[in-house]
Amino acid sequence: MVKKLTPMSEDFNQWYTEIVQLADLADYSPVKGTMVIKPYGYAIWENIQAYLDKRFKETGHKNAYFPMFIPKSFIEKEADHVEGFSPELATVTHAGGKELEEPLIVRPTSETIINHMFSKWISSHRDLPMLINQWSNVVRWEMRTRLFLRTSEFLWQEGHTAHSTEDEAREESLKMLDVYEEFAQNVAAVSVIKGTKSEMEKFAGATTTYSIEAMMNDLKALQAGTSHELGQNFSKAFDIKFSDENNELQHPFQTSWGVSTRLVGMIIMAHGDDKGLKLPPELAPHQVVIVPIIPNDDVKTNVLDAVNKLNESLADSRVFIDDRSEVSPGYKFNEWEQKGVPIRIEIGPKDIDSNSVLIYRRDNESKNQYPIEGIAEVVSTILIDIQKNLLSISESTIKSNTYHVDTYDELIETLNDKKGFVSCFWDEDKENEIKVKEKTSATLRCYPINNDEVEKSVNNPNKNGRFAIFSKAY
Amino acid sequence: MVKKLTPMSEDFNQWYTEIVQLADLADYSPVKGTMVIKPYGYAIWENIQAYLDKRFKETGHKNAYFPMFIPKSFIEKEADHVEGFSPELATVTHAGGKELEEPLIVRPTSETIINHMFSKWISSHRDLPMLINQWSNVVRWEMRTRLFLRTSEFLWQEGHTAHSTEDEAREESLKMLDVYEEFAQNVAAVSVIKGTKSEMEKFAGATTTYSIEAMMNDLKALQAGTSHELGQNFSKAFDIKFSDENNELQHPFQTSWGVSTRLVGMIIMAHGDDKGLKLPPELAPHQVVIVPIIPNDDVKTNVLDAVNKLNESLADSRVFIDDRSEVSPGYKFNEWEQKGVPIRIEIGPKDIDSNSVLIYRRDNESKNQYPIEGIAEVVSTILIDIQKNLLSISESTIKSNTYHVDTYDELIETLNDKKGFVSCFWDEDKENEIKVKEKTSATLRCYPINNDEVEKSVNNPNKNGRFAIFSKAY
Repeated sequence: MVKKLTPMSEDFNQWYTEIVQLADLADYSPVKGTMVIKPYGYAIWENIQAYLDKRFKETGHKNAYFPMFIPKSFIEKEADHVEGFSPELATVTHAGGKELEEPLIVRPTSETIINHMFSKWISSHRDLPMLINQWSNVVRWEMRTRLFLRTSEFLWQEGHTAHSTEDEAREESLKMLDVYEEFAQNVAAVSVIKGTKSEMEKFAGATTTYSIEAMMNDLKALQAGTSHELGQNFSKAFDIKFSDENNELQHPFQTSWGVSTRLVGMIIMAHGDDKGLKLPPELAPHQVVIVPIIPNDDVKTNVLDAVNKLNESLADSRVFIDDRSEVSPGYKFNEWEQKGVPIRIEIGPKDIDSNSVLIYRRDNESKNQYPIEGIAEVVSTILIDIQKNLLSISESTIKSNTYHVDTYDELIETLNDKKGFVSCFWDEDKENEIKVKEKTSATLRCYPINNDEVEKSVNNPNKNGRFAIFSKAY
Repeated sequence: MVKKLTPMSEDFNQWYTEIVQLADLADYSPVKGTMVIKPYGYAIWENIQAYLDKRFKETGHKNAYFPMFIPKSFIEKEADHVEGFSPELATVTHAGGKELEEPLIVRPTSETIINHMFSKWISSHRDLPMLINQWSNVVRWEMRTRLFLRTSEFLWQEGHTAHSTEDEAREESLKMLDVYEEFAQNVAAVSVIKGTKSEMEKFAGATTTYSIEAMMNDLKALQAGTSHELGQNFSKAFDIKFSDENNELQHPFQTSWGVSTRLVGMIIMAHGDDKGLKLPPELAPHQVVIVPIIPNDDVKTNVLDAVNKLNESLADSRVFIDDRSEVSPGYKFNEWEQKGVPIRIEIGPKDIDSNSVLIYRRDNESKNQYPIEGIAEVVSTILIDIQKNLLSISESTIKSNTYHVDTYDELIETLNDKKGFVSCFWDEDKENEIKVKEKTSATLRCYPINNDEVEKSVNNPNKNGRFAIFSKAY
């Protein structure tokens, strides 16, 4: 029997821990805080990578690779940066049988080593903009870890760019935030709020951090991607200079931006239900699973022939044929529902007789019979519809679970009493921001961008405040 | 002016060091022994990855990701393995501000951690074969390093598989060696000799190591890829067991196989010449560079229009338009020759008048005028021809520089006097193998597989010997 999953309605955290393993996405590793990404989980990451890598290249970025080991002195060059990352660093002290003269830090992020190289590569305005991306592993030592969401080592991409002007850097930073938003909504089918982080929550070394914030099915927020304006903080610390068109030396303005394997966690928690995963078709390793129904051996050849024909006609989709003979169709149904495959097609002798197949949709659990004739188009239409439906559910989850408040007391009360996002006009007071966290464990997720309509629609007694969203978060 | 390159005929090592940097393939990093792979070099690696990843999947393998940090005790479980890798290990002793209870090794290869996980995942013959691949970085601390060829950190893929029988494992191991050979010959356009490593040269922990050996333009050998039969060495050390069809517990037979960014070094040294790189079209980031010839501003619009039209008609190839105005066409010609772009197309007012373009081939330095009409087909035909030509040159380089010897003294003499490969019938004597290395610095590269014809064609006074190739190597 397929192993039983704790319903998310009973215990969301337990559900998450179980489904990650039951669906073969990841496993615990013997090194505390690290994980093994299993083939089914890694295939989702590969689909994420394929989409983003294409978009990065279309927007003019080139991939490169920088060493994972960073001299300790580099990390220390930018004051905020070292303060932010110090507690999480892993250090190599011995190599090749000897103690190293200077300990090496395993990259928690690559600003320092990349900007050291930029200082060698950039000398003229003709070298700008420099638009680099890296796909790599990074290490941030964590005490409390959670598969995909928070592990000591994770996989990610990090974009690093340098520009002649601050405006151009801002434009880049917001452009990549848009790419992340577009990915979240159109590919992961997860609605997100784009916004600016508060001073307290911004990246160690940035002048401004932007993020996309998603809502999980337990109504907590998840920061799904960040894009930073670094100003001249790193270009000054690493002495990056270019001669401008008037032949004067200037420090470039920079950005960095990243998303990680945490996105797999987002997809699990934004779409899953008591039965398991619901994968958006754009990212599902298998968009369709075909389960042959073979009541007796006499019909076996017939059914498998029909399955193969069906598979051939579905060449445009990612199809998996589950022809295992050691488990029953019912077992397979449960397993593929847990694994979130968008469409299951059942085909047995009766279907063959009627020239039709049964299609089960994972998103709304509907079952319908369709003629074999024209099945490719039906499947592709349903996949598009599932993709849209998942996004629309995600959108309404945010809408139905966001509350607006007008006073500080109401903010505290609502954050403590209700699950979801709480919006308000916030006076950007750091002390109060800390207090809110202490009293509710919620944080200021972001000051939403392009949110005029929302801002107008809510009552605003404090005209000087900045529209903000608070929430408990992962 | 484009920086001058030391001719390879004068100083091959100097030529290599210079071209890697001049062609923007890689740069030295501040951490001793590590390198930065620059966008142009990384794009070659991405093309290598794209081809191999597709072939790995077609042959049934799935990608996964395992932690980079390995408990020291794991490395020590397989005796030969720890002995082989000990001198090259980098060790993390501190993390998250504390000293670790057990030091962590940064993976030099992932047999140990992967086989630990296999012991959790494999229990029945139904779980076999298990066919996993990982794309990742690895660290082997090196004293004398060389960009791409030998660096402390490098990128690679490592396949790890488990099978019910020894025969199946051998078949897998040889199948992946074939994939490597096919890649080298058809994609990298480098002729290779497939063979079995000697006992001395095999992988630490393997029962048999196979490799592909290529010949560089200085006539030294380069081991371009390896595939290992691991027997039950790791499955016993990590207690991996499966119940076979008779319900008896067995240790599976295993393989591992890998290629790395070293392949970029192979491509540089197998095809380059005094002018710089010669990239095989299958791997070239730009297959075609278009250089507009603009003798005066009046014709600029006309020429650039023609360039854009030409570019559109070449949509099936990877084309780069070099429309920089701050450097001359001559400068561009030199630069793209250094960077090894297979085809350069020049187009100026005269070409527009005659409805034709000038095509320069990097491989044979020929220049010919071709009508614009049907240019796409011409370009694609030339690209195929360049690809073939590079392979055929590589084949003749091996043929013309391989010598057969019949005695031990002749072997030593030929290895010392001539550059290239030296074949002989070898009695597999380890002591003598060490002596050859001491006296000539050459090593036994491999016992070629499927080499019946060659074996028959050479004189074989020692019928008991095994046909072997010796050479100096990278």
